[in-house]
Amino acid sequence: MSAPVAVIVGVGPGNGMAFANRFAKEGYRVALLSRDASQMDAYASQIDGARGYPGDVTDTGQIDASFAKIQSDLGPVETVVYNAGSGAWGNVDELTPEDLAANMDVNATGLMRVAKAVLPQMRGKGHGNLIVIGAGAALRGRPGTIAFAAGKAAQRSVAQSLARQLGPERIHVAYVVIDGAIDLERTRARMPDAGSDDFLKPEAIADAVWGLTRQHPSAWSFEIDLRPFKENW
Amino acid sequence: MSAPVAVIVGVGPGNGMAFANRFAKEGYRVALLSRDASQMDAYASQIDGARGYPGDVTDTGQIDASFAKIQSDLGPVETVVYNAGSGAWGNVDELTPEDLAANMDVNATGLMRVAKAVLPQMRGKGHGNLIVIGAGAALRGRPGTIAFAAGKAAQRSVAQSLARQLGPERIHVAYVVIDGAIDLERTRARMPDAGSDDFLKPEAIADAVWGLTRQHPSAWSFEIDLRPFKENW
Amino acid sequence: MSAPVAVIVGVGPGNGMAFANRFAKEGYRVALLSRDASQMDAYASQIDGARGYPGDVTDTGQIDASFAKIQSDLGPVETVVYNAGSGAWGNVDELTPEDLAANMDVNATGLMRVAKAVLPQMRGKGHGNLIVIGAGAALRGRPGTIAFAAGKAAQRSVAQSLARQLGPERIHVAYVVIDGAIDLERTRARMPDAGSDDFLKPEAIADAVWGLTRQHPSAWSFEIDLRPFKENW
Amino acid sequence: MSAPVAVIVGVGPGNGMAFANRFAKEGYRVALLSRDASQMDAYASQIDGARGYPGDVTDTGQIDASFAKIQSDLGPVETVVYNAGSGAWGNVDELTPEDLAANMDVNATGLMRVAKAVLPQMRGKGHGNLIVIGAGAALRGRPGTIAFAAGKAAQRSVAQSLARQLGPERIHVAYVVIDGAIDLERTRARMPDAGSDDFLKPEAIADAVWGLTRQHPSAWSFEIDLRPFKENW
Repeated sequence: MSAPVAVIVGVGPGNGMAFANRFAKEGYRVALLSRDASQMDAYASQIDGARGYPGDVTDTGQIDASFAKIQSDLGPVETVVYNAGSGAWGNVDELTPEDLAANMDVNATGLMRVAKAVLPQMRGKGHGNLIVIGAGAALRGRPGTIAFAAGKAAQRSVAQSLARQLGPERIHVAYVVIDGAIDLERTRARMPDAGSDDFLKPEAIADAVWGLTRQHPSAWSFEIDLRPFKENW
Repeated sequence: MSAPVAVIVGVGPGNGMAFANRFAKEGYRVALLSRDASQMDAYASQIDGARGYPGDVTDTGQIDASFAKIQSDLGPVETVVYNAGSGAWGNVDELTPEDLAANMDVNATGLMRVAKAVLPQMRGKGHGNLIVIGAGAALRGRPGTIAFAAGKAAQRSVAQSLARQLGPERIHVAYVVIDGAIDLERTRARMPDAGSDDFLKPEAIADAVWGLTRQHPSAWSFEIDLRPFKENW
Repeated sequence: MSAPVAVIVGVGPGNGMAFANRFAKEGYRVALLSRDASQMDAYASQIDGARGYPGDVTDTGQIDASFAKIQSDLGPVETVVYNAGSGAWGNVDELTPEDLAANMDVNATGLMRVAKAVLPQMRGKGHGNLIVIGAGAALRGRPGTIAFAAGKAAQRSVAQSLARQLGPERIHVAYVVIDGAIDLERTRARMPDAGSDDFLKPEAIADAVWGLTRQHPSAWSFEIDLRPFKENW
Repeated sequence: MSAPVAVIVGVGPGNGMAFANRFAKEGYRVALLSRDASQMDAYASQIDGARGYPGDVTDTGQIDASFAKIQSDLGPVETVVYNAGSGAWGNVDELTPEDLAANMDVNATGLMRVAKAVLPQMRGKGHGNLIVIGAGAALRGRPGTIAFAAGKAAQRSVAQSLARQLGPERIHVAYVVIDGAIDLERTRARMPDAGSDDFLKPEAIADAVWGLTRQHPSAWSFEIDLRPFKENW
């Protein structure tokens, strides 16, 4: 019961599971939050001692309830990896205002919901980590990313506001700018000519996330970028 | 009827009226959009030939209807100044997810609603201007601006996506980063020790907005910043 | 003798002459600085009342002497357009440390030399403008621009330091990010497939520079970008 | 003789020694480069198996000679930490063009000299790391940092150009943005009211540098920032 607790918000076959595996391997009790409760249990069952919780980040009540349940089941949360995301691809003609609003809800407002739910637990412990998985799109809007980029830009801004407020409370908020395609079955299918070197490996991203949570408080990063060595950027 | 048409979205006693006055003075037919229809008519009555229209930028149907009415009343729109904004001040403890969502709705989704409503008119004309009034907060999140900064960051991203797509169609989208306090009665009341030189004058901002709409297409700006000469930045 | 004085530092057939023409047309006495004194007189002879001065921005003594001479010939300088530049194209393997140093000397140290030479004159007048012609490369380094981009990044930093210090003294320092190819004979020759719409017109850039010097002090820009409407950015 | 070789360029009592100690502890042969050859030997003598070399980064010949000597003494270099720096503090009135040029020479041109000297060795090995110790000043110029900020801005640009070119050759170039005061005797003396939590510890910075050299090539960072958790930024 005294093992530290990590929560992965937004678990799928790629990054989410890699984060969960890494924290489990390092001795953490791991809680997996996902929109799809059925899928959730399937993921949790693959990791020793992990548990799944409902995690629709657009639902404040559900997020609050799940973090309360995690605290009573596993103890107060020390680390959250915010991996929820949503991509609606298209330009101003192809997407609706609702698409844009949905992207900002999942990426930015969801992050605020999770922060508000977990802060009392981290403050109770006297420290914590909130690592947000972002994207290069946060830094620039392009025609086909009018919704995704805005969601990520808002998310990065929220993360920065949180980092500046919470740093002095020893709660480390960091933003990871993923700049490239992640090595997933569905990404490979979309990029048939790409080779293995063209993708970010989820385990390598997990390594960076883990490293952020190990930084000495005298030298915390707010933002790091990650891309394959071959990437043209 | 052949005078060009400018729409000011978000009219209040400061910038909005200054924009309206400037475009009216330059020979434009001016439409004023505001959330508050009663106030709207009072503003419109101060400007020769101006008309007020309902303009709640969070309401897609109302925005669509107002732009349709403007076209039938005044002709196709050439220039929009997007001046809608909303500021909920406070940090993660003081604000709610709804505050954040509301800021992003007014600043970013509202901009997309207006763009979608006006694009057919600008495309019909073969050119147009969409000038967005932004803020320095778009570039950085701070503890007390968790909602405002995220709304402005998302707005800037949307504007950039629009600019990159629409430039080649001769529709000029630009973002004005206001960095400082605007000279309004309520701002003066909040900063009693400040002198006249500490504020941005709405007429000077209007001058910059007008200048953006006059740029030759071989040298368009996407982003300009504006601040008082005395500002410490 | 009471006409205001503008100095164009770095005059060639493109931007420099367009700046000179614009300020002359607006009633300024214009001084043209160039590395090549012979060429200098040929340029000056094309503009009514303009005079040429030696202007090697890498030579502190020459810059100091030319600004002293301008003051005694034409009166104290009100506006400087810093258009000196130098591009050594190539990557780390193709260029030498001397190429890099030369780029930084012309772009950044030269700007400081000119600022130091002209500041007493502007301070004497109680106001002034120093407009720096920069480039998109200031914002990002790329393999083939290791020297040019570093020179422009350093230049932008110097301009920002100057702007923040001198704004309260009513001396307006601004940085113009040129993002695209300028319409010159030699650029056209290098891009044979490009059409007229693909280039920035020097007169349009001059219009933006002029506009910066006309901004009301309550709403000064530090940075504006300029690119052709068709540019893919 | 088969231990990997790390070169610390710019060794002093703070970061430089911390980097050297870290790489030595991890099994590297360490070469220390410093402007002051006498001091150099004193530092090297504190680290098992380390050697000092003359390292005035403003002298191309000396840098080339030292890297050639390192290769013949220790073998081809795998990792360089570029820690050379120079700060001339003051504004445009207080500093000279020579101060600015000197800062850019040490920070940016020196980095290019070192890159050119070490590249053949890294290319021969098929991989390498070049970690550059930067500063927050790289991102913004301020009145009192007209020379330092420009030097760091140019340095960051050079690093970015190198990173984009060399990544595909498996040579990892990264830039570390130090944002805060480092815990050194002389910094403490300058900030008598600061507590231990207000400073970056050299060992913590060394940890971040080490981590960058361990990143999997599928997820390399170009830029990370580091600051004390209490920092107001």
